[in-house]
Amino acid sequence: MSDRLHGLLTREPRVVTAGASVLAEALTRQAVPVQEVDWRPPATSAAELAVVLGDPRHATANTTAVQRMLTARPHLVDVRPAGEVLGLERGTFLHAGPPITWERASGPMRGALIGAMLFEDLADTPEQAEKLLAAGGVRLDSCHHHHAVGPMAGVVSPSMWMFVVRDFEHGGTAYCSLNEGLGKVLRYGAYGPEVIERLRWMSAVLGPVMQAAVLRHGPMDLKAVMAQALQMGDELHNRNRAATSLFLRELASDLVECEASQSDIAEVLRFVNGNDHFFLNPGMAACKVSADSARDVPGSSLVVAMARNGTDFGIQVSGTGDRWFTGPAGVPDGLYLGAFGPDDANPDIGDSAITETAGVGGFAMASAPAIVRFVGGEVPDALAATRRMYEITLAESSAFQVPILSFRGTPSGIDVTKVVRTGILPVINTGMAGKVPGTGQIGAGLVSPPANIFADAVQALATG
Amino acid sequence: MSDRLHGLLTREPRVVTAGASVLAEALTRQAVPVQEVDWRPPATSAAELAVVLGDPRHATANTTAVQRMLTARPHLVDVRPAGEVLGLERGTFLHAGPPITWERASGPMRGALIGAMLFEDLADTPEQAEKLLAAGGVRLDSCHHHHAVGPMAGVVSPSMWMFVVRDFEHGGTAYCSLNEGLGKVLRYGAYGPEVIERLRWMSAVLGPVMQAAVLRHGPMDLKAVMAQALQMGDELHNRNRAATSLFLRELASDLVECEASQSDIAEVLRFVNGNDHFFLNPGMAACKVSADSARDVPGSSLVVAMARNGTDFGIQVSGTGDRWFTGPAGVPDGLYLGAFGPDDANPDIGDSAITETAGVGGFAMASAPAIVRFVGGEVPDALAATRRMYEITLAESSAFQVPILSFRGTPSGIDVTKVVRTGILPVINTGMAGKVPGTGQIGAGLVSPPANIFADAVQALATG
Repeated sequence: MSDRLHGLLTREPRVVTAGASVLAEALTRQAVPVQEVDWRPPATSAAELAVVLGDPRHATANTTAVQRMLTARPHLVDVRPAGEVLGLERGTFLHAGPPITWERASGPMRGALIGAMLFEDLADTPEQAEKLLAAGGVRLDSCHHHHAVGPMAGVVSPSMWMFVVRDFEHGGTAYCSLNEGLGKVLRYGAYGPEVIERLRWMSAVLGPVMQAAVLRHGPMDLKAVMAQALQMGDELHNRNRAATSLFLRELASDLVECEASQSDIAEVLRFVNGNDHFFLNPGMAACKVSADSARDVPGSSLVVAMARNGTDFGIQVSGTGDRWFTGPAGVPDGLYLGAFGPDDANPDIGDSAITETAGVGGFAMASAPAIVRFVGGEVPDALAATRRMYEITLAESSAFQVPILSFRGTPSGIDVTKVVRTGILPVINTGMAGKVPGTGQIGAGLVSPPANIFADAVQALATG
Repeated sequence: MSDRLHGLLTREPRVVTAGASVLAEALTRQAVPVQEVDWRPPATSAAELAVVLGDPRHATANTTAVQRMLTARPHLVDVRPAGEVLGLERGTFLHAGPPITWERASGPMRGALIGAMLFEDLADTPEQAEKLLAAGGVRLDSCHHHHAVGPMAGVVSPSMWMFVVRDFEHGGTAYCSLNEGLGKVLRYGAYGPEVIERLRWMSAVLGPVMQAAVLRHGPMDLKAVMAQALQMGDELHNRNRAATSLFLRELASDLVECEASQSDIAEVLRFVNGNDHFFLNPGMAACKVSADSARDVPGSSLVVAMARNGTDFGIQVSGTGDRWFTGPAGVPDGLYLGAFGPDDANPDIGDSAITETAGVGGFAMASAPAIVRFVGGEVPDALAATRRMYEITLAESSAFQVPILSFRGTPSGIDVTKVVRTGILPVINTGMAGKVPGTGQIGAGLVSPPANIFADAVQALATG
């Protein structure tokens, strides 16, 4: 009798159950220890999955799509006002996530829109701004419809300056606003005088000085910065300390030599040095332009956008064009600032899940063990999160590597069929906004998309 | 019968042997798999160890000494010429490691001294410099005798500028030169025209501009920078990319606003941005001032300096004053640049092992898995190196933490009695210099001190 068989008979049995709990309950009644696995049968019908997987284009389409995303070469080429570069007109505001109306908008989204109205001098008081917004006096549209992304509320107005990121491989361009820092900031729904004053300085000084330095520097290879930062403890969504440092040191000499006053340059350097999240925004634009290059491959089940507006979580899939698959945004689970707690948290918000879409952020948590001090959990959880994401992705990045996993490439390219088959949902690192407009940031944590949106995407691929 | 006892009888035996190989050989002849452990009986007599360990002062002395080292608060307070700040006179040169003469000096040490002669205009040609040096026309002394440290050859001449680092807790001060970058540089024994030209620029521009920025900034908490860098993939000896980035971003606005020309400031920023090892030197001074605070505690077996001059490896121990215990420096094992190979390598050289003395460098390799691409080996080796060092150290740092080890403090404070009892030698990350003077850097790798110096220190403690 082999050792293994022998052990089966002589040792205590260890039982693992999955699915319906009948067996687990029966064993528990007999005092047998049971490990229950949280697995549920796929929400999509097996027939729909079979149609998508049986599509003769499917495998090739996914390879094409994910290879496009992975071979993108995003470069920061300019910094320009949204009005100029997106053709955004006065009275139009972009926002994070799938399209939403004022009526369905959550607190922080409303707060950010109120702040943007004040910033653009479209209202004199928050009350007046709210009234105008409620009366439908402005146009709202999703950032993603304009090749743009914005963290948290992601509100973009014409006077805000945007990072301009070009993909030198496939030719696309994407945009992201400039990062304001943490705490009471517009993107977390705050709109007090200090928020508006900071936005004015960003448009008057930060944007133009950044532009001058970036143009003087020439195109900056953001993929190279991101690849390095992943070897320096960042995961590039909630931890951007290394990338921000590399970005600043790379640009510092051009800042010094650009056409701006010494005091403005010093103020810009202090501002960036004071904000470890500064690189989040150019990084998001890099992820956006990479993911956009993988759009519209017929038959592909690759996710090309994940985005939240604070009410809905939406995804877009390569093989289904611009259609959004949406479900209710969940509330992140994590750590809170100061006296805030779970009751203060707004549901998940922001376009920053474009980082996970492109194979970093929560998918690269193993690169950033120190992040558990910011989002909660223990170090092994960070490693486990990355390992789990290999189950639902199509490829491993060649550029983005995780040293602690012996330089394995990050899990990249979410496949909706894999999500549906495994029941494993993408893990997203995220900031948490207070649900009351004007509050600002209250914490950071982890969140998953609603399961239905992946099933809906499979259904659309099957029937489309 | 318990499961464990049962297993002992029913499963294949697993044999681990240590010491003399008689048992292992006998088992191997019987086809029994054997795991041999590389353990040798201590080189020191058990009686000497017993005397040191039995010294009633020993435990308290070690606690006092290591706590002093761990509670030091090194701050960068100034940058000044060695002539001024060390009172170094023309014709005197400091060097790395224990004291050495020209006759016994290795190639890179000779090369660096030749370069320093040219830099100080004490000779017109390398040949003339060599002649003067061989004739004993200059004074040589160990950096460590002047509260100073220097990486690799560590040659310091009066016109070189030094980082001035003060320990705000215990009041000590330490000094380290400015880092030249990699490749053909003085500290690796190169002395060509480009080396001398760079040194002149460093004295004329880099030093004064750094001084102006540091004075404008005010004392910089180096321990905080180092603690952050350890969470960003540095181990602070052979990988200083994060620390250099943090240092530069912290100082950038003061550089911009200091009294210097725009072009000099931009050049300094480009130079620092171009050299990921720039922080090594202020970091070494921080380690030196911390280790110095633990000196001269009677009965303590704590190592307060490890240093190599390219010929000898020397240590100093808290309880034995300024006495050096020396043995032959080994040749590092690692990765080579370009076409260089093991035959080109000089024995271990430099004061940079002060980082390992203070609980970082090789001792913090688990923080820096990406370093295996620079020094060789696999990622698990980096984790194993740090774990092994807990066996020979007195404490775990509270400031310096390793995220991947769930924020465990780095192994800190080498105890010569632990080294002798376990036979485990300190692991040191190091650069490799070409053994022919003038070559420069040829690679990077790992090295250990000779075992005898720890035994000699125990003997001295026992008899002292």
